[in-house]
Amino acid sequence: MSEPAASPSGKAPKRIDFYFDLSSPYSYLAATQLPPLAARNNAIVQWKPIVLAAVFKNTGNVMPAACAPKATYMLADLGRWAAHYGVPFRFNTRFPINTIRAMRMIIAAGMERGSEYGHAELGQALFHATWAEDRDITDDAELRRIAQVLGLPGDALLAACDTQPVKDRLRAFGDEALARGVFGAPSLFVGDELFWGNDRLDFVEAALRRA
Amino acid sequence: MSEPAASPSGKAPKRIDFYFDLSSPYSYLAATQLPPLAARNNAIVQWKPIVLAAVFKNTGNVMPAACAPKATYMLADLGRWAAHYGVPFRFNTRFPINTIRAMRMIIAAGMERGSEYGHAELGQALFHATWAEDRDITDDAELRRIAQVLGLPGDALLAACDTQPVKDRLRAFGDEALARGVFGAPSLFVGDELFWGNDRLDFVEAALRRA
Repeated sequence: MSEPAASPSGKAPKRIDFYFDLSSPYSYLAATQLPPLAARNNAIVQWKPIVLAAVFKNTGNVMPAACAPKATYMLADLGRWAAHYGVPFRFNTRFPINTIRAMRMIIAAGMERGSEYGHAELGQALFHATWAEDRDITDDAELRRIAQVLGLPGDALLAACDTQPVKDRLRAFGDEALARGVFGAPSLFVGDELFWGNDRLDFVEAALRRA
Repeated sequence: MSEPAASPSGKAPKRIDFYFDLSSPYSYLAATQLPPLAARNNAIVQWKPIVLAAVFKNTGNVMPAACAPKATYMLADLGRWAAHYGVPFRFNTRFPINTIRAMRMIIAAGMERGSEYGHAELGQALFHATWAEDRDITDDAELRRIAQVLGLPGDALLAACDTQPVKDRLRAFGDEALARGVFGAPSLFVGDELFWGNDRLDFVEAALRRA
């Protein structure tokens, strides 16, 4: 389905593990760059949503915005990155956002097509709704609309968000991330190498070229 | 002296304020790149040492290494940047390091030649001693040696470290940094724009081109 079996050269595609929380604006920025980055490196992106608040709690890390001058700086920095990439950005007025249900929907949509990973297109649409359009992804009506625009069965996916396999997978991605040394988002892996932050995509690409 | 009055084009040089603590390995990495970056943009770098522990205390920020998995990651990340830049790097075995005396020496050496900023060459030598050679810059004998290699009067500078004007200037740079929104190191300014981190030098350079 979403995973090409092999490139025109006949080689198996490389893999990028993408751990993210929809509440993370730097994860959104990274997500905007992943499709072309993956395409030019014969790689596929494995979308793995995680609950960042749980990661912070487990690692003793703190959210960057907890430090007031850092929060002020981050607003400017996010705008610089968006301009650099040429992508739209508006800081979501509902931040911090409880994204658990939206991330379960990404997982449910992946499962619905037989994948163990999150549904990339739905993930992109939810990131865009949150960080480009200031929409409210804690609202079921919004979630349904966003899914349906992609031709996905919104009501069925919302129902699936309440099922144990979907809940368990979101938790499992978080546990897996912690076991691999993740402490923030976005976190990307090429093989066993961890790269933290939208600002490390050049290193991710260099690792893919070596892989 | 260290400040070119004008470039061959006749324009006044642009200015980069470089707030750093010698204890910060990312500040070392940034320092290795500043001379060529400044040269190709007709800019001068104003070296402003600050006591990072005081900045953290005042802003409620925490040192990155306080989160164990982040500290592990940073070691790998620092190595990647050093390889990317082609500069030597060894994590200092005495970390965390009390750098107050060494930073006062940078200020004293600047004053000695009539500058209100820190002495760039001495700053570079102290960064290199700390982060490339694992030397102990809390030791007066090391500080004297490092100064003397540059032709600076080591004993006179060490004596100056205990004088009020030198102490006051280190504190003043820290207060100035806090007033400008600094919360970590390295922090660089082009005009009123703050850029935090070795990983924002491309943005610093873009700001210089616009300046």
